[in-house]
Amino acid sequence: MSIKTFVMQKALEAKEGARALAKASSGQKNSALIKMAEALRKKSKALQTANNKDIVAARKKGLSKAMIDRLTLTSQRIDDMAKGLIEIAALPDPVGEITKMWKRPNGMMVGKMRVPIGVIAIIYESRPNVTADAAGLCLKAGNAVILRGGSEAINSNLAIVNILRGVARAEGIHEGAVTFIDISDREAVMEMLKLEGTIDLVIPRGGEGLIRTVTENSRIPVLKHYKGVCHVFVDRDADLQMAEDICFNAKVQRPGTCNAMETMLVDQKIANKFLPSMIKRFKTGGVLLKGCPVTRKIDKTLEAANEQDFYAEYLEKILNIRIVKDVDEAMDHIAKYSSAHTDSIVTADYGKAMRFLREVDSASVFVNASTRLSDGFQYGLGAEMGISTDKIHARGPMGLEELTCTKFIVLGSGQLRV
Amino acid sequence: MSIKTFVMQKALEAKEGARALAKASSGQKNSALIKMAEALRKKSKALQTANNKDIVAARKKGLSKAMIDRLTLTSQRIDDMAKGLIEIAALPDPVGEITKMWKRPNGMMVGKMRVPIGVIAIIYESRPNVTADAAGLCLKAGNAVILRGGSEAINSNLAIVNILRGVARAEGIHEGAVTFIDISDREAVMEMLKLEGTIDLVIPRGGEGLIRTVTENSRIPVLKHYKGVCHVFVDRDADLQMAEDICFNAKVQRPGTCNAMETMLVDQKIANKFLPSMIKRFKTGGVLLKGCPVTRKIDKTLEAANEQDFYAEYLEKILNIRIVKDVDEAMDHIAKYSSAHTDSIVTADYGKAMRFLREVDSASVFVNASTRLSDGFQYGLGAEMGISTDKIHARGPMGLEELTCTKFIVLGSGQLRV
Repeated sequence: MSIKTFVMQKALEAKEGARALAKASSGQKNSALIKMAEALRKKSKALQTANNKDIVAARKKGLSKAMIDRLTLTSQRIDDMAKGLIEIAALPDPVGEITKMWKRPNGMMVGKMRVPIGVIAIIYESRPNVTADAAGLCLKAGNAVILRGGSEAINSNLAIVNILRGVARAEGIHEGAVTFIDISDREAVMEMLKLEGTIDLVIPRGGEGLIRTVTENSRIPVLKHYKGVCHVFVDRDADLQMAEDICFNAKVQRPGTCNAMETMLVDQKIANKFLPSMIKRFKTGGVLLKGCPVTRKIDKTLEAANEQDFYAEYLEKILNIRIVKDVDEAMDHIAKYSSAHTDSIVTADYGKAMRFLREVDSASVFVNASTRLSDGFQYGLGAEMGISTDKIHARGPMGLEELTCTKFIVLGSGQLRV
Repeated sequence: MSIKTFVMQKALEAKEGARALAKASSGQKNSALIKMAEALRKKSKALQTANNKDIVAARKKGLSKAMIDRLTLTSQRIDDMAKGLIEIAALPDPVGEITKMWKRPNGMMVGKMRVPIGVIAIIYESRPNVTADAAGLCLKAGNAVILRGGSEAINSNLAIVNILRGVARAEGIHEGAVTFIDISDREAVMEMLKLEGTIDLVIPRGGEGLIRTVTENSRIPVLKHYKGVCHVFVDRDADLQMAEDICFNAKVQRPGTCNAMETMLVDQKIANKFLPSMIKRFKTGGVLLKGCPVTRKIDKTLEAANEQDFYAEYLEKILNIRIVKDVDEAMDHIAKYSSAHTDSIVTADYGKAMRFLREVDSASVFVNASTRLSDGFQYGLGAEMGISTDKIHARGPMGLEELTCTKFIVLGSGQLRV
């Protein structure tokens, strides 16, 4: 069978699965999720055996320690996957919710009802826990999922998928609810991306290269997450102690994440007062600091930050500091350099807080809080499918609601078009 | 200047326009819309002179009478464009609306705020009134628009755009709010579709060929409208007189539209009772009927409907009739053949009405109303930008709300990630 035919068959299976899932009750979906969690726990040993094959192969290929760590399924991690599914079961079912309804002059009621998207393809790299998380979230939102994981995790992924499909079958949910493309050939991805009309949405999760390839080749809508170049602006009216705590947390608490701060903007009016103790704290925390020319007048030991630095997603303990004239110059900087992921203002001034909220065009805009809080769990979404930096459908953390769309419903009593 | 550079410059101008527009107050936007309407009326004669150049060229090229009619701007049509802009000014501003807000255990408030999408490209054919409608809707929703109209309407489009830009300038709104690509070369469209990151959304409006080309070549998200293959299912529990009126209206009131019925599904239990008078009425109304084998037993004069007919968007007085076993078979038929635009059930049975609403996966799902009511004006959206048959972001008629997205906002008091 050609790769094209193979992928098409899988997609058609998923489409059948989607139709069945869209009709499943919340009870059925929750029961399946809980039984999937139980099955993962019960088969933990077998999963670790399958995972070990991937680890041996990865070592042979000379993959980095960090990559092998991401690949590894310990019994703790398997238990975490199971917990994740149980948490998803506990979340409210978004499907069928009527978000609004109004009456028209001719008497008909028009409303918007939340419905599943249909078939969602997830194209991802290394970490096998994505397999269970993505399948669970899609299932709860009534979507069938087609998974295409990285070749380095193929044995782990297949083992997880087989467990999930086994439960789906036993629970009377169509197996097509969870489908896996076990062809590592790049052609398989290219064929998936052509299946407009069968696959409804593609979510690539991985490095920028993967995401660009998917975007450039897909005829299907893509929701994606490029990088996180996040800012905190310390306004002249900030509580400076609060500002220091927020900036330190935003940079240092976990620098390798997309919601960590990469550039700190400081109002010139309080720069002399704020920076010395802030800089000292960063240095003690092991952060390499790069400053704009004005910042370097305050602390001559800082490296110079150049134009390219302001675009950089460091993902490590490196920080740019720039002194700006006021909130307008801060927002101009953000408009130019931000990746529109998460940007925060620290201020006690109501007017500037409201302007920042309205005018900064990022997926998450904060007042007086650390950018590290930009995440589906912190927002109370219960679980997330990644963070969208796109500008349509969903911006920011994607939870269950973002895995649905709305259709119009009309309740009539014989209305005609006149 | 190369086409690539030219298009890039226009897109960057639009991006500046979008940033300015996102900050504009509702008052500023409404005032601009009203002044644009006044300017169109005042320059009606000049518009008609420009339009006449397009008409002369179209006649020379031998375009069809229907196409020339669509192209023509009478003083009535110019007045209608102006009215459209005034109506948009009267609609509530969607931008800045906080659609929900909740409190987290750490005390921070998380909410979703409606924001403009940014730069929207509209790629369209013949009708020059789209120029004013699209620009007005985008402006009110805070988006800059890049228009790329068909070459046959180039003089009319440019004249309209110049009027709109003149008002934008005079009203202190950045001219980049309305940008026009006046290169008829196809390469201009291809270059637009590569400008991911500058253009945020593409909406193609026109024939299926145009839409497929855009979808296949775009790296930017596309919202599109393929065809409308709409169904009405007459259930055994329908009020048969109501069913007859709805079906007749759905087919005959304006057959050339995407929300007209193309296939009527009839429950076998009432087929003998319902069909004879219904068929008679259709025949009197000049409708050519094609029947399934069972239908043709009831009326032997009908043509046979074949498999392909059930996929057809006739857009004229032709109708397929199929008799089905029950509501399940009706929904199976719709799942297979519908374009997921608009499908309606006529029934007095509550349970079946609710199942149909939930289970039919179309952008608009109706109970006891004519599919012809599937439209932004009929829904009370005030105006529309076309009907999306996509499954993300927006399904069905796209009004102002559908030209926005939501971002997350967080109101904190010093919260950190622990």
